[in-house]
Amino acid sequence: MTTPIRIGIVGYGNLGRGVEAALTQNPDMQLVGVYTRRDPSQVRPLGAEVPVYAYDTLLSAKDQIDVLILCGGSKGDLPQQGPELAAHFNTVDSFDTHNRIPEYFANVDKAAKAGQNAAVIAVGWDPGLFSLNRMLSEAVLPDGQTDTFWGKGLSQGHSDAVRRVPGVQAAVQYTVPIESAMEQVRRGERPQLTAREKHRRECFVVLAEGADAETVRRAIIEMPDYFADYDTTVHFVDQATLDNEHSAMPHGGFVIRSAHSALGNNQTYEFSLQLASNPEFTSSVLVAFARAAYRLQGQQQTGAFTIFDIAPALLSPQPVETLRAQLL
Amino acid sequence: MTTPIRIGIVGYGNLGRGVEAALTQNPDMQLVGVYTRRDPSQVRPLGAEVPVYAYDTLLSAKDQIDVLILCGGSKGDLPQQGPELAAHFNTVDSFDTHNRIPEYFANVDKAAKAGQNAAVIAVGWDPGLFSLNRMLSEAVLPDGQTDTFWGKGLSQGHSDAVRRVPGVQAAVQYTVPIESAMEQVRRGERPQLTAREKHRRECFVVLAEGADAETVRRAIIEMPDYFADYDTTVHFVDQATLDNEHSAMPHGGFVIRSAHSALGNNQTYEFSLQLASNPEFTSSVLVAFARAAYRLQGQQQTGAFTIFDIAPALLSPQPVETLRAQLL
Repeated sequence: MTTPIRIGIVGYGNLGRGVEAALTQNPDMQLVGVYTRRDPSQVRPLGAEVPVYAYDTLLSAKDQIDVLILCGGSKGDLPQQGPELAAHFNTVDSFDTHNRIPEYFANVDKAAKAGQNAAVIAVGWDPGLFSLNRMLSEAVLPDGQTDTFWGKGLSQGHSDAVRRVPGVQAAVQYTVPIESAMEQVRRGERPQLTAREKHRRECFVVLAEGADAETVRRAIIEMPDYFADYDTTVHFVDQATLDNEHSAMPHGGFVIRSAHSALGNNQTYEFSLQLASNPEFTSSVLVAFARAAYRLQGQQQTGAFTIFDIAPALLSPQPVETLRAQLL
Repeated sequence: MTTPIRIGIVGYGNLGRGVEAALTQNPDMQLVGVYTRRDPSQVRPLGAEVPVYAYDTLLSAKDQIDVLILCGGSKGDLPQQGPELAAHFNTVDSFDTHNRIPEYFANVDKAAKAGQNAAVIAVGWDPGLFSLNRMLSEAVLPDGQTDTFWGKGLSQGHSDAVRRVPGVQAAVQYTVPIESAMEQVRRGERPQLTAREKHRRECFVVLAEGADAETVRRAIIEMPDYFADYDTTVHFVDQATLDNEHSAMPHGGFVIRSAHSALGNNQTYEFSLQLASNPEFTSSVLVAFARAAYRLQGQQQTGAFTIFDIAPALLSPQPVETLRAQLL
């Protein structure tokens, strides 16, 4: 057994907790500690022995950490932390603001190159494994159409939007892919589907004291961007039901490319995930890519990387000879 | 537009024809010619303008070819041609004798390194994209079980075995995955399935003049290795029916990994292909990896490579900036 890869976790919400858990499934890695912007005494990792440090002490631990896994949010945390930390550490993150990825990549790349570190950005499942499958399927099947369907799963952004509606005490929102649309895609019909034709939305809402159900329902289903373009069902439930039946964070989805070979044959490529825990899966992906970041730097490859840039074998704890003999 | 990648096809059966066709969907590549061990005048490419040359003239075309796509068989052709040609050219092949891959890799690696070429071996769908998904899913979800199901599809090896049975004039064999077994895997039950529980086999047979149907049926379903361990159905049809309804070469299958996160949540990862033409899909994969072989050598990366060793972006005709902006 070689020396374990020493990991630091930055930020400790659902994702940070998931990374802590996922590391226990990867014996070639070792958790050095959790770094937080909160008061460290208020953060309780799953493992009682896991030390919690203040974010500001990170630089002093530079020699004890091989890779930092950044578990902050894409809106408030990563745009600053990503470049800041890549200047001093190998990093991995799940930056997921799709339209700002080129800008984020450039900033992290510059910092990581200056610090001679490897920084893997935007890994998880979307962006991440879904992106990889969109890319691979297009490269292999140039004449086709790729559709991504999400769900059934809990959408954090849409749940937050529902919670902001006056009269809502608590709520969750599920995104549900429309099976008949997926079947059309699989049959190779290359349908041009509207948002409404691809997904429907389902909300479970606890009304605030005195709120009018119909007023709340209308405010939700007519909300621009989030709901107006979809068929949305609103179920009113009590707080106990919401707590008991809707506190998990399942998600998943499908990437389907339907294509024709040059001789006219239908070729269908499909990738899907059904996840009982969305954050724990993203965490698992981050941990595998932490291994890649460590190895990339070991090969003197520095700068920012996405899932497109990384040879798959770098993700596996197995030697590549074993992969060839057993999995090829 | 940069200069096209110049491709040579070695061997012209179903796979070589598929490569010729797939190249027409990839405008960054250009077909130089087909090389054959047969009499070149007897080989008729799809494109009337495509030149056909004798295999023995290959070396004289060294300066006109960037990558050779080897379309010979894994049993008789590739063990010799792979190393022989990798000494002089960048190559791609779909070597698919799973248990001989380590030995083949070593032989090709040595030749390719000596010739400073990049040789991509064993790409297609299995080995190939299925292998990649087995590897990725294990790396990301360490606590789980991966099952591969094949079909519904025409198996060349099993069809050949049926054709060797006395009394059989013509035949095809389909491998069919058992849906209930796939559902067990998807539900996370991690079943230990026997061969019989995962796949069934279906044969369409034209009897030779005077042959006894029941004798032929028994000889098929009791054949060791090929059929004895499966539930096999034999349908007797006339030659016209076989020609009309069973001359396509569909195939496909499923790689399903069912796993638990460290906190006990079920996480299911699934990849599948449904291919109206098996050889044309393998050909499409070979063509995408020809692009990678060319780029690898351009980066001074030489030797043998498998799908595990190649950064996915190398397969795409798009610049990586475009991939990041559009597909991540």
